[in-house]
Amino acid sequence: MAKSVHLEAGEEPIVVVLRVGHRPGRDKRISTHVGLVARAFGAQGVIFAGEIEETVIKSIQRVVETWGGPFFVKIVRSYREAINQWKEEGGIVVHLTMYGENIVGSNVLERIKRRGRKVMVVVGAEKVPAELYELADFNVAIGNQPHSEVGALAVFLDRFFGGAELLKEYLDAKIRIIPSPRSKIVERIHR
Amino acid sequence: MAKSVHLEAGEEPIVVVLRVGHRPGRDKRISTHVGLVARAFGAQGVIFAGEIEETVIKSIQRVVETWGGPFFVKIVRSYREAINQWKEEGGIVVHLTMYGENIVGSNVLERIKRRGRKVMVVVGAEKVPAELYELADFNVAIGNQPHSEVGALAVFLDRFFGGAELLKEYLDAKIRIIPSPRSKIVERIHR
Repeated sequence: MAKSVHLEAGEEPIVVVLRVGHRPGRDKRISTHVGLVARAFGAQGVIFAGEIEETVIKSIQRVVETWGGPFFVKIVRSYREAINQWKEEGGIVVHLTMYGENIVGSNVLERIKRRGRKVMVVVGAEKVPAELYELADFNVAIGNQPHSEVGALAVFLDRFFGGAELLKEYLDAKIRIIPSPRSKIVERIHR
Repeated sequence: MAKSVHLEAGEEPIVVVLRVGHRPGRDKRISTHVGLVARAFGAQGVIFAGEIEETVIKSIQRVVETWGGPFFVKIVRSYREAINQWKEEGGIVVHLTMYGENIVGSNVLERIKRRGRKVMVVVGAEKVPAELYELADFNVAIGNQPHSEVGALAVFLDRFFGGAELLKEYLDAKIRIIPSPRSKIVERIHR
């Protein structure tokens, strides 16, 4: 799984993303972007807690079918249960919030990496339940300014994996891009 | 302006974000996130080309009023004119696209920095006009996988400014956050 992602010597990290507080209708495209960012930045899957439109799930699955995986999409009823189960399995929980410790100018990223390689990254929508701050092992701010859970997730994962995630090779991809300074070059992969 | 942002010795960078291809309705929240990410990651303003809802503009302006600036929001009729004007003023244009040169595993970021400190970052929606690839000085991929213009913009700016943008101080802010591992601490600023 995720065989080209290397943090450093040692066990490979396992990262999943938990999306909390999706509001049907309003958050449809933002939650889709959360899922696609999770995949493109090296997470192994995304979990949506609560009600979510079928179209969000399908959009993400379609990307996995075309561009490769492995990457899972899961819906659970309770974020609390998902977090507690993750912790029972020895995972740590990082909640991204603008109120948390700033990833720059603090040592929070090193403390996270020291604690373990099995990380659940929790991203909320506009308002999140107060208990999330307690359930999480770390509350981390990607800067202490209001912006976007999509942007925060991307930067967190980019800094966590140190860029290696952007070179990851995906299995069972039907197409892949040949990077180019001027053109769109897509290679179809035949098996 | 942007007085805490330092790349390295020399002139301070001037970055603006140009949002192309906004689809009214569908892209409302994504374009709002593009604007907020631009502000929170050190750009001096965001320019929307074409039709856009008043609510998008207002949401971004409300954040500037409360959390500080300087940060401008502008609407222009033609992305082509905005790009050409920027280039006439000596600026360079970076188009973020998954087809471009990967920011990891290539030297494109160094080449951009060598070319100048006045950078327009262009982010499109799902489909962008083909001529953008020609108008841009650089076509840059934040990984060659499909994900999100919001995530791509955040990571590009984070790598461009090297993290300094996340410590930037904003002028005329009415409130600011005191980073905290467990709580929401907001300081009201009286003048």
